[in-house]
Amino acid sequence: MAEQAKIVTGIGKAELHRILVRGYDLNKDLVGKITFTDMTSLMLRGRLPTPNEAKMLDALLVILVEHGMVSHVIAARLVYHCAPEAIQAAVAAALCGAGSVHLGSSEWSAKMLTEALPPDSKDPDLEAIAGAIFDDYSARKQRMPGIGHRTHAEGDPRAETLFGIAKDTGIYGNYCELLQMLSKVAGERRTRLIPVNVTGAIAAIALDMGFPWQITKAFALIGRTLGVMGHIAEEIRNPMATQIDAAIKQAIVYEPYRT
Amino acid sequence: MAEQAKIVTGIGKAELHRILVRGYDLNKDLVGKITFTDMTSLMLRGRLPTPNEAKMLDALLVILVEHGMVSHVIAARLVYHCAPEAIQAAVAAALCGAGSVHLGSSEWSAKMLTEALPPDSKDPDLEAIAGAIFDDYSARKQRMPGIGHRTHAEGDPRAETLFGIAKDTGIYGNYCELLQMLSKVAGERRTRLIPVNVTGAIAAIALDMGFPWQITKAFALIGRTLGVMGHIAEEIRNPMATQIDAAIKQAIVYEPYRT
Amino acid sequence: MAEQAKIVTGIGKAELHRILVRGYDLNKDLVGKITFTDMTSLMLRGRLPTPNEAKMLDALLVILVEHGMVSHVIAARLVYHCAPEAIQAAVAAALCGAGSVHLGSSEWSAKMLTEALPPDSKDPDLEAIAGAIFDDYSARKQRMPGIGHRTHAEGDPRAETLFGIAKDTGIYGNYCELLQMLSKVAGERRTRLIPVNVTGAIAAIALDMGFPWQITKAFALIGRTLGVMGHIAEEIRNPMATQIDAAIKQAIVYEPYRT
Amino acid sequence: MAEQAKIVTGIGKAELHRILVRGYDLNKDLVGKITFTDMTSLMLRGRLPTPNEAKMLDALLVILVEHGMVSHVIAARLVYHCAPEAIQAAVAAALCGAGSVHLGSSEWSAKMLTEALPPDSKDPDLEAIAGAIFDDYSARKQRMPGIGHRTHAEGDPRAETLFGIAKDTGIYGNYCELLQMLSKVAGERRTRLIPVNVTGAIAAIALDMGFPWQITKAFALIGRTLGVMGHIAEEIRNPMATQIDAAIKQAIVYEPYRT
Repeated sequence: MAEQAKIVTGIGKAELHRILVRGYDLNKDLVGKITFTDMTSLMLRGRLPTPNEAKMLDALLVILVEHGMVSHVIAARLVYHCAPEAIQAAVAAALCGAGSVHLGSSEWSAKMLTEALPPDSKDPDLEAIAGAIFDDYSARKQRMPGIGHRTHAEGDPRAETLFGIAKDTGIYGNYCELLQMLSKVAGERRTRLIPVNVTGAIAAIALDMGFPWQITKAFALIGRTLGVMGHIAEEIRNPMATQIDAAIKQAIVYEPYRT
Repeated sequence: MAEQAKIVTGIGKAELHRILVRGYDLNKDLVGKITFTDMTSLMLRGRLPTPNEAKMLDALLVILVEHGMVSHVIAARLVYHCAPEAIQAAVAAALCGAGSVHLGSSEWSAKMLTEALPPDSKDPDLEAIAGAIFDDYSARKQRMPGIGHRTHAEGDPRAETLFGIAKDTGIYGNYCELLQMLSKVAGERRTRLIPVNVTGAIAAIALDMGFPWQITKAFALIGRTLGVMGHIAEEIRNPMATQIDAAIKQAIVYEPYRT
Repeated sequence: MAEQAKIVTGIGKAELHRILVRGYDLNKDLVGKITFTDMTSLMLRGRLPTPNEAKMLDALLVILVEHGMVSHVIAARLVYHCAPEAIQAAVAAALCGAGSVHLGSSEWSAKMLTEALPPDSKDPDLEAIAGAIFDDYSARKQRMPGIGHRTHAEGDPRAETLFGIAKDTGIYGNYCELLQMLSKVAGERRTRLIPVNVTGAIAAIALDMGFPWQITKAFALIGRTLGVMGHIAEEIRNPMATQIDAAIKQAIVYEPYRT
Repeated sequence: MAEQAKIVTGIGKAELHRILVRGYDLNKDLVGKITFTDMTSLMLRGRLPTPNEAKMLDALLVILVEHGMVSHVIAARLVYHCAPEAIQAAVAAALCGAGSVHLGSSEWSAKMLTEALPPDSKDPDLEAIAGAIFDDYSARKQRMPGIGHRTHAEGDPRAETLFGIAKDTGIYGNYCELLQMLSKVAGERRTRLIPVNVTGAIAAIALDMGFPWQITKAFALIGRTLGVMGHIAEEIRNPMATQIDAAIKQAIVYEPYRT
């Protein structure tokens, strides 16, 4: 039998007496010495963060933890109620909804920004690039991910907060600027407010920090895992899933048809 | 139609211009001012942590982020390879495996400890309680969650690290002591080493901090979400899922039977 | 390097020009010649069904496909709305809720019945066994899975239909009888109707067919996968997820507390 | 409070004594009288199938049940091993991988075919349309979903079987023909065999039956749910997840880097 070629990973390894993570000894070098936010940088970027990066990462991790009784939270509460022995499955159900429309749109916003403005661009004309993005999406009749928000129609306060921290920490760069420009261009051409939303701001900031576009969704996934656990903790103390079920059933009418 | 009774949540709410989280304004009071670890305390316990609590929480959040190419990571890499447009689903697949046998056993260890030692117990005889747990599980021929580990058969270094921090921060209490005692009793009666494992240590420490037993799995879920994103980030740069598939197929033989 | 021991599976194998399934050639022997219900028997029992078994299996597969806007369907619709590019994740979210409380309780009912009445029991005293189950669950203050239903409090018509088919096909046996007896015993002792429910009937019938208890949940998972796809198909033509979201939000009040 | 507008569904409803499904009474009209395959038509198309349609649907449901130890099966076995108390989560993990690259590509193939050939096209020039698809995907450097297969490089026998049944049942139409033409065009221009694969054939046949493109993935999801349950059933009798884990670990080398 042909020898299987070795598969090489650079992330980590478990041995009898130690766990290695990107060249560090988990127990000796990391736990008790670094924060979870530091660990986020180590896992996703391969190095510990500077103090300014850590401040920015904390903001990115905190910003999507909680947004009220949104779809993902409802899904998690209902699944938990049906399968309380598998809390992990309730969290998984919530994460399944981190897609292109809600929660997970950082990824698609970052993809759009990266394709329009490759990382190594020199002296880009951001207004022209924003216009080109607008034209492209208009031609395909698609929504531009990262701008516009149903609940926060007059401006997403979370985007503003994140951009403020990005400026304070010196991280605010071309991608943040491009997304703001896109919001401006879109607003002018559509003659209504289309403000940058929170997942757009996360996308732009993460790109300005050097993250690949696919990974920008990590902040939503980590944050919302915590958020959902908070809601499940409340559901355990004070169950409301059956009331939620009842509220939905009360709103629904069945009118059969057979296509 | 009968009026639907109101459903009351104490977690949070999204309004047009602000997001409220347990009485705080997310943008004014929290983001940029607190760490993700502080937010973990706020969401799961309803209040910000003391510095010692924050130190302990950071350790609990970091300890399970990475443990090499374990089952959950393999599942996530394979699912990502098949559905790269849905990274969230790859993370969800990994979390689905945080069950009673691996990664998710904190919950079951904490349940066992809580049932044996109710939170308000006065002057408990921990050795007697540990003996009773051992007898109970032996009678039912079940494994005791929180002690023993396949990879770290001579002692799980992560449990030792966590207990050290629990002592330094003054958090180490009856539940930590009870689990250590259980490990000692089990080792003596079975005449082999059955050391406390990492999910057991997380369970005991979280109980000593006052978390309900069901919520102790939160640290595994949050940590592993980050861990899996680290592996997916590597998979994007350096795909190895097809090699993993090939390694498995090479090891498998098909011998048909029809029951 | 030590040679890896071979891992032996009896299910199937893909080759360059054919796919083998339990000794059959998928394309030559199965597709176009058997029904999906036949395939269910082949995969789960290792052999094709008799006509009576096929009739019973069809009923088990159909019975849980649809039950209105239940929790699993709501979860799937909300997740689909957030991530329309990942329909599979919406279905997965729904399946995550096939747990011990709703949809997935066949498994736990079958476990209870198997432990009380091992498969090879001779001339069992079913009334005594039912009484022992009742006493055991009462002592532990646990609900008995397989009897009682919130919506169908006066009797689950699906259980009656399934038992009727089980009698017609000669499948009705000791497990069906035991579950009916348990419902009778529980009803007498609690002096109220506690009828057999649909997941209980599935469990008992599957055991009488010789399925292991863990696998009895398969019918719920397969059926509900179809059911959820039907709802997603409607959601695509006639989106209602945002209305569902709105109905929930209208019913919810936020009253902050900090523990 | 403003009255919540009613939400109208046409799928089904649960009442105290009956369950309604698309205008039928589940217990009186359907269970015991129809097959699961009939129910598939009723749920996804709103009507019961003709005999020829039922034959075709059976083939579509059976064809993807089993393909050996593929990624989805490995993911399910590993997740089951870690969380045996939540079989539903193991199945969900497998379904999460029904994406654009493997198992779930019917959806994307059907989307491509529908966009190139709208359902109401009159006398289409299929060769020209196939050429246009080829040019479009080549320009964007994307793989065309529905043709080409890693394992079945010389032709996917499943696609041939399905097309044969589609011809026998009179279902074979423009979409089947277009996909075959696309395979021919692509093969000629790339001067190598790029045969229609199984998910492509499912897509084309489902479109020729009148299914919307998004729903074509249903067959993969239903079939694989059964397939995975078959593998979990084997895993219960004859556990091999730890051997699979070991085979993977044996193939992996850790070479730390820090980006």
